[in-house]
Amino acid sequence: MSMEYCSMGKNELEEELKFVEDKYNEFKAHGLKLDMSRGKPSPEQLDLSLPMMDVVNSKSDFTSSVDCRNYGVVDGIPEAKELVAGILGVSTDEVIIFGNSSLNIMFDVVTKAVIKGIMGSEPWVKNENVKFLCPVPGYDRHFSVTEYHGIKLVNVPMTADGPDMDVVEEYVNNDSDVKGIWCVPKYSNPDGITYSDEVVKRMAALKPAAKDFRIYWDNAYCVHDLFPDDKDKLLDIFAECKKNGSEDMVYMFCSTSKVSFAGAGIAALAASKANVNDILSQLKWQTIGPDKINQLRHVRFFKDYNGILEHMKKHAELLRPKFKLVHDIFERELGGLGIGNWTNPKGGYFISFNSLEGCAKDIVETAMEAGVVLTGAGATFPYGKDPEDSNIRIAPSYPSLDELEKATELFTICVKLVTLRKLIAEK
Amino acid sequence: MSMEYCSMGKNELEEELKFVEDKYNEFKAHGLKLDMSRGKPSPEQLDLSLPMMDVVNSKSDFTSSVDCRNYGVVDGIPEAKELVAGILGVSTDEVIIFGNSSLNIMFDVVTKAVIKGIMGSEPWVKNENVKFLCPVPGYDRHFSVTEYHGIKLVNVPMTADGPDMDVVEEYVNNDSDVKGIWCVPKYSNPDGITYSDEVVKRMAALKPAAKDFRIYWDNAYCVHDLFPDDKDKLLDIFAECKKNGSEDMVYMFCSTSKVSFAGAGIAALAASKANVNDILSQLKWQTIGPDKINQLRHVRFFKDYNGILEHMKKHAELLRPKFKLVHDIFERELGGLGIGNWTNPKGGYFISFNSLEGCAKDIVETAMEAGVVLTGAGATFPYGKDPEDSNIRIAPSYPSLDELEKATELFTICVKLVTLRKLIAEK
Repeated sequence: MSMEYCSMGKNELEEELKFVEDKYNEFKAHGLKLDMSRGKPSPEQLDLSLPMMDVVNSKSDFTSSVDCRNYGVVDGIPEAKELVAGILGVSTDEVIIFGNSSLNIMFDVVTKAVIKGIMGSEPWVKNENVKFLCPVPGYDRHFSVTEYHGIKLVNVPMTADGPDMDVVEEYVNNDSDVKGIWCVPKYSNPDGITYSDEVVKRMAALKPAAKDFRIYWDNAYCVHDLFPDDKDKLLDIFAECKKNGSEDMVYMFCSTSKVSFAGAGIAALAASKANVNDILSQLKWQTIGPDKINQLRHVRFFKDYNGILEHMKKHAELLRPKFKLVHDIFERELGGLGIGNWTNPKGGYFISFNSLEGCAKDIVETAMEAGVVLTGAGATFPYGKDPEDSNIRIAPSYPSLDELEKATELFTICVKLVTLRKLIAEK
Repeated sequence: MSMEYCSMGKNELEEELKFVEDKYNEFKAHGLKLDMSRGKPSPEQLDLSLPMMDVVNSKSDFTSSVDCRNYGVVDGIPEAKELVAGILGVSTDEVIIFGNSSLNIMFDVVTKAVIKGIMGSEPWVKNENVKFLCPVPGYDRHFSVTEYHGIKLVNVPMTADGPDMDVVEEYVNNDSDVKGIWCVPKYSNPDGITYSDEVVKRMAALKPAAKDFRIYWDNAYCVHDLFPDDKDKLLDIFAECKKNGSEDMVYMFCSTSKVSFAGAGIAALAASKANVNDILSQLKWQTIGPDKINQLRHVRFFKDYNGILEHMKKHAELLRPKFKLVHDIFERELGGLGIGNWTNPKGGYFISFNSLEGCAKDIVETAMEAGVVLTGAGATFPYGKDPEDSNIRIAPSYPSLDELEKATELFTICVKLVTLRKLIAEK
């Protein structure tokens, strides 16, 4: 049983530091070179979808509602809408298929709200105080989209059940400058938290002061279960909203970036018909429409929602050992030391690590000096500023098991090193 | 030899009208159903690129600067940049590869100028008088992009050599609210005019009152020659700008929509490094980047600029007879009547027809009633308003020769019918 660092005397800490420094220097000498900064699928995961490259070929029938090789159909071919409707549990006329990037859809709808407003409301560009709620820690690229537009980002604490709904209700129901909240409701980035039924119900029951308030419901990990037989269940927010007559309040997003090919998948928005019509009325000015051949490829390969779920089981088989490995090394190396805690999610792409206050930046830097690039400390907070300098997002998907083992060991050494130095300096 | 309508007496006109009305009713009885409203490639043209569907398959090597199946490389893979650089005659660091729609790139750069300004200049959203010059007749979707943003659209007459440069210089060099001009410099939409060397030189020598003025140089038909051995040559505006030190003044656009697959091609922007960096600095907030597998597909299929040119010869073989057919029918049916003129372009996608003043809308409507949908009259002008109600864009690419023959004959009948009625009413 390890001894908690905080109960060690200065001499013990210095002895431990010397030991850890030696181990760190050993690692450094190996000349590791690993990038764990983003949640990227591994080559083996990408291999799973390779047969998709053959289902559409020169002999294929390209006919859908139109010849998929030609212009037309700005909102997606019917078969692709059916596929996405199945994933998100909506009807096909509540879906728009876009290109390969759900982030780009989010950027677009926010941009349109800034320039044109939502469903006839005042464009946000005329209001300098527009605010978005950002459950923290959260997804850096969500925060960036709104930061780009000069929207004020408001931290909302995450609880084990999702965003702190007392805080959310207080803001949304009283402040008409609050126009949105960023949500990754299932296996949240980075904490891996799935919003509880109560949180979803309270979300759907919000009475926004701003009629153009929207919940930006990025269901990025909706089918990304590590344990297909023991998966988190997310309550259907859209159904809840419909019960309350508030179905215009939510924009839902998903993509196949981590289902088929990251960067060559298809992405979609789902929302009420009123929202869909509002967005389509602007889309026609903007683009000739997304790549319909790639939509066809996805439809022919996955067929339907069940096809997606079967495919995701293969991803889970590749990802499970990686999550387990990181967890086991954390337990073995850091368990009982009282210098950090970490999540053990049932899906998604991340493990969230929290160091003692004021250590995260140094840990990331120390790891980088030994050749392991992590997501920048602070990235999981608006403006890159973690007020406690504590959260670090671990992305175990990309490296091989062998690389991941080394990188995780190094990470635990860096945690120890930085924490020890800090504790010694404070003595 | 036909007699000019304007020299006919009322009786002769009425007799001719009766004859033409009979022919029109005959056509109407056939129940034609043809959509010639947009410049769409025909199925046979799309077939030309079908082998591209096989060059990337499950056995392919997906490695470029990165694994093309994964995230990364927001500005395009190096091989795709080389391909586009070859087409546009620029260097690879002057190119950004985007998704499948060059219209979407244009919408994006205009949107960014509205929200953020260009290279540090004031965002257009702060200026209610921003103007764009629109050579007319021109491309409706260009005009729409700026109309969407509430930008004032200023008509500039087209001459046989391109936009009237006296007008352009007067506006651009003196009015700091003029922020852009829409150009289709080769085989212009709809006139098929290629800008003369002098026009290009005067464009490159503009001294804009606004430092954020840009020439939106949509080289949509850069390789779309009908006569590969007798093609129009467009002077390189970027090289001319470089001579004048004005290379930041031009954004160039192109796509393979009418080279490979309309809707599943690749599109690109080329510009000075300063412009490219300005755009890239914002792009990272917006998207995970375009589909790199589709870039790979294009590179492996076309290989290089020469590969593109060889491929375009096959398109020309399919398109030439269609352009000739329309031209021949126009000559035969309308020649010498003095009721319209039309272009005979050496490339591009359109034939531009000008009726007598005040007839275009009626002609389009009359054709529609007999089952042939043409581009809306007025569409070739900002706000859909042709001040002379005269220009009609003919898109001969999509229908079969047989259908095209019927549709063109019907069109000439509609021209006669509407003109006769008008002339009789005026008697």
